[in-house]
Amino acid sequence: MAVYTDVDDDALAQFLTEYNLGEVLSMKGIAEGVENSNFLLETTRGRFILTLFEKRVAEADLPFFIGLMDHLALAGLSCPTPIHGIDGRALRRLAGRPAVIVSFLTGMSPRRPTVKQCASVGTALAGLHEAGRGFALTRENALSLAGWRRLVADCVTRADSVRDGLGRTIADELAFLESHWPADLPRGVIHADLFTDNVFCIGDDVSGIIDFYFACNDFYAYDLAICLNAWCFEPDGAFNATKAMALSRGYTAARPLSVAEAAAVPVLARGAALRFLLTRLYDWLNQVPGALVRPKDPIEYLNKLRFHAQASGPETYGITSA
Amino acid sequence: MAVYTDVDDDALAQFLTEYNLGEVLSMKGIAEGVENSNFLLETTRGRFILTLFEKRVAEADLPFFIGLMDHLALAGLSCPTPIHGIDGRALRRLAGRPAVIVSFLTGMSPRRPTVKQCASVGTALAGLHEAGRGFALTRENALSLAGWRRLVADCVTRADSVRDGLGRTIADELAFLESHWPADLPRGVIHADLFTDNVFCIGDDVSGIIDFYFACNDFYAYDLAICLNAWCFEPDGAFNATKAMALSRGYTAARPLSVAEAAAVPVLARGAALRFLLTRLYDWLNQVPGALVRPKDPIEYLNKLRFHAQASGPETYGITSA
Repeated sequence: MAVYTDVDDDALAQFLTEYNLGEVLSMKGIAEGVENSNFLLETTRGRFILTLFEKRVAEADLPFFIGLMDHLALAGLSCPTPIHGIDGRALRRLAGRPAVIVSFLTGMSPRRPTVKQCASVGTALAGLHEAGRGFALTRENALSLAGWRRLVADCVTRADSVRDGLGRTIADELAFLESHWPADLPRGVIHADLFTDNVFCIGDDVSGIIDFYFACNDFYAYDLAICLNAWCFEPDGAFNATKAMALSRGYTAARPLSVAEAAAVPVLARGAALRFLLTRLYDWLNQVPGALVRPKDPIEYLNKLRFHAQASGPETYGITSA
Repeated sequence: MAVYTDVDDDALAQFLTEYNLGEVLSMKGIAEGVENSNFLLETTRGRFILTLFEKRVAEADLPFFIGLMDHLALAGLSCPTPIHGIDGRALRRLAGRPAVIVSFLTGMSPRRPTVKQCASVGTALAGLHEAGRGFALTRENALSLAGWRRLVADCVTRADSVRDGLGRTIADELAFLESHWPADLPRGVIHADLFTDNVFCIGDDVSGIIDFYFACNDFYAYDLAICLNAWCFEPDGAFNATKAMALSRGYTAARPLSVAEAAAVPVLARGAALRFLLTRLYDWLNQVPGALVRPKDPIEYLNKLRFHAQASGPETYGITSA
């Protein structure tokens, strides 16, 4: 949950004169996204989400994120569509922060996804990968090997304060991934954070994908590995192979995996688990007193990492290649 | 801002089977109200606010609050209307908490109200007082003299840690109010917390009043005095007499004040200022480490209190009697 910046009615009215959106009927700060301030804005022209970017999002990346949403929406993906002002620009400033208005999507994030929702998110992820083709801008994945290396260096000495032996485990895992990470696989725009909070469903079907603020260029199969981590473990830590098979088949039915991609899934899943373990560990070790966001438990991802390290192969994830 | 309790999609779907509200299309935690968890809920039947009552609201008071909203809405006031379940009940439980669904109101809370908005809120307050007549339940004002006495006893010894001499000031003020508080004035249901956050406007006009969780039975003119405190001071602390006159005239045009009510306004305004000074001081002195709500500055109300103590009479507030 997060609403960091207050926007008053005068400032909003002034801001909206730069758009063709009619008059404000209501605006409510909403508890969505942990990186930005989000408001549900209703005008005489419809409902929208107003996002103010807080410090954690680099301003230089905003043209990539906003251009990507434009591109994906135009390609038919159900995602927030940036609303352009009268001057054609989608990105401007409000309350001293970069700000954008995007279209509102209906649907609810599943807290404990069903097997059918897992299948649907697999299909939606493949659709996102297809829709991203041809997007002109690129953004390096700041949270791949080089980024993990920096995070390990930052956290390794204090990691054992969270769990005995954790420092050694993450150093060993990084070493393993450095030597086993795929050199090349099909790549393009990936979401890189497709957790259940970033997916809306109506019933069993995905109705929309949001929060593209970690999107970047990387292996498509790595995005699938992130989803397997995020969607296919139960609250008690158990891996749900039925959900994994549904998700993988949903994906591969729409975008078949090459033999190399399929073979790489277990190591990509380890990498994805290490990525979330490290960012959670970093946030855990660097809590700001009085912060409004409670950090998530890093140990959840240590357990997932251990599962992936013991996986017998892609078949563990219901993965078959084309 | 506040969203304290998480409601998952399964629990919500189950809860909604007890209503005739169709299927869920979206639900978002909203940053509204500091006492409860609020969600904007959209279903195939429309938009609603789902409120979960957290610890600060006494469960025994809920039938009063919910019955009052039913009564006021039926009398034509633009306020949230409780939605009754298939079994006729409006109050039930969700996620272990008392919960209610009410209708959604459009409008935006003014941050810095205009003179016309002050006039409109005066009229709306009189309308609320009229609409409350005939409501069968009653609730004592827990934050009148007896409540202040308890708060002064709790805070007085530590008050000087906030501002030198504050302990003496609040003890003296309480003594003054004990001996000058009106014995009897016209009374009925009052809102008791009609700050700008609890009022929605569209343009210059009040479009709705929300948050009845301090409502109680007390002097009508005390409610007007609370509004004068909440709406007629500028951010720099200056009393805006033009706004006060607009608010008072908006009120008295719809519900004229008796001579005794008009004469009592300065002392009622002092009481209202002490009430918010004391609750803010209490929250300031009893901050919970890691709490998600930042306490409001009590000193703002010390300054308002000083203003009222020097007011020459009801004319300071643009008040005339019938």
